[in-house]
Amino acid sequence: MAIVPHRRLIGVLGGMGPAATVDFLNKIVLSTPAGTDQEHVPIILHGVPQIPDRSSAIESGSDAPFLPMLAGLRMLERNGADVIAIPCNTAHHWYDRLARTTAIDIIHIADAVRDELVSRKSLGAVALLATRGTIASGLYQTRLAGTVDTVVVPDEHVQQLVDASIAAIKAGDERAGGAAGEAAVLALIESGVEFIILACTELPMALRHSQLTAGVIDSTVALARACVIASMAVSRAPLARAG
Amino acid sequence: MAIVPHRRLIGVLGGMGPAATVDFLNKIVLSTPAGTDQEHVPIILHGVPQIPDRSSAIESGSDAPFLPMLAGLRMLERNGADVIAIPCNTAHHWYDRLARTTAIDIIHIADAVRDELVSRKSLGAVALLATRGTIASGLYQTRLAGTVDTVVVPDEHVQQLVDASIAAIKAGDERAGGAAGEAAVLALIESGVEFIILACTELPMALRHSQLTAGVIDSTVALARACVIASMAVSRAPLARAG
Repeated sequence: MAIVPHRRLIGVLGGMGPAATVDFLNKIVLSTPAGTDQEHVPIILHGVPQIPDRSSAIESGSDAPFLPMLAGLRMLERNGADVIAIPCNTAHHWYDRLARTTAIDIIHIADAVRDELVSRKSLGAVALLATRGTIASGLYQTRLAGTVDTVVVPDEHVQQLVDASIAAIKAGDERAGGAAGEAAVLALIESGVEFIILACTELPMALRHSQLTAGVIDSTVALARACVIASMAVSRAPLARAG
Repeated sequence: MAIVPHRRLIGVLGGMGPAATVDFLNKIVLSTPAGTDQEHVPIILHGVPQIPDRSSAIESGSDAPFLPMLAGLRMLERNGADVIAIPCNTAHHWYDRLARTTAIDIIHIADAVRDELVSRKSLGAVALLATRGTIASGLYQTRLAGTVDTVVVPDEHVQQLVDASIAAIKAGDERAGGAAGEAAVLALIESGVEFIILACTELPMALRHSQLTAGVIDSTVALARACVIASMAVSRAPLARAG
């Protein structure tokens, strides 16, 4: 009988949005060194897209997404997840409160992006393409402080392009999403930043066929890689206690 | 506050294989008429690729995949799935035994394909591109009896191409998987069949960029459509009892 390699179970709090969750799961599969099914990463997914829109909740001061996300977290916990990932940047506005309720490690997407920036030896300014909610919550600005010099946020004109790109992807319109997303990336390249973070999991789908890839950091890929590393690492289970 | 539409929860017994599961989830998203996240289908996934290989188990008379699949089914049941789908054709060898253990409807992938054939007014012979395990189990032959005249199974030469295509996709080699898969489809077209069923969820990935799409039926799409219909249908919950 073949030896089944040890893999830790990844719990995915997804559905925010549904296509972004699929993109994330795909990037986990693509990031895994595996020749057979059995070497891949085991995953349980809570993919309930009925969770209220995160960005508009932050903007209006509503806490509506918190309890539905907490329910998803409890489900993943109850079913044995060893590590948890949330493939939605904006949802990380509630990260601290979610993390405080569980002993399970939740990989923060901005930490995964920070590790990627460190590996690329970022020195200067990085730009943030994200929902208004993610920008308002300051979650990237906080987590990247000390790693990058400046986090540049788009002006109102570019932010409107970002909003349009995300909305188009959520509605299944890749062509419109791609056009608006590319225009936003171009504007930021012209502003002279060193790296551009796609800090909304819809944006990598919008830019799937774009040629503008130099200096662009995909937060979905960063989180997927962090999950594969966490799943394949030697188990953290303690040794049996001496008598 | 926006009205959240009623959606039944789809439980996916996946991971067999991991890329095929992602492809299936993607086809659910693409098959759903939705303009916002909240209109999409809610999903929970048990995606544990460590379940032993189904095709070699059938060929060697082993029952090894049954209990791990049953554990996955129990997890989906415990977490409120209203309908269950298994995006692995070969795993349906154990369908009857799994279905007998639960009151929840498990959509049979061959029934989803049969509905597709009926809608296309199939009259003659259909060919089955599948693992040796699926062919040996006779699950399509049984479920399609009465709907199609003849189910054609490949000869040894073509089956070897199918085996190679599936193995290449499981190992992440889309180019090799595509070449072998196309050669198999071409051989079957030349044999004069009316429709060709891609009855292994790895095969649609192998043929993703193929031009040979006429008469080809993707079992993954058929199952995804059946799930969306099941999720969006009016709830089967009984009315409150009188008195």
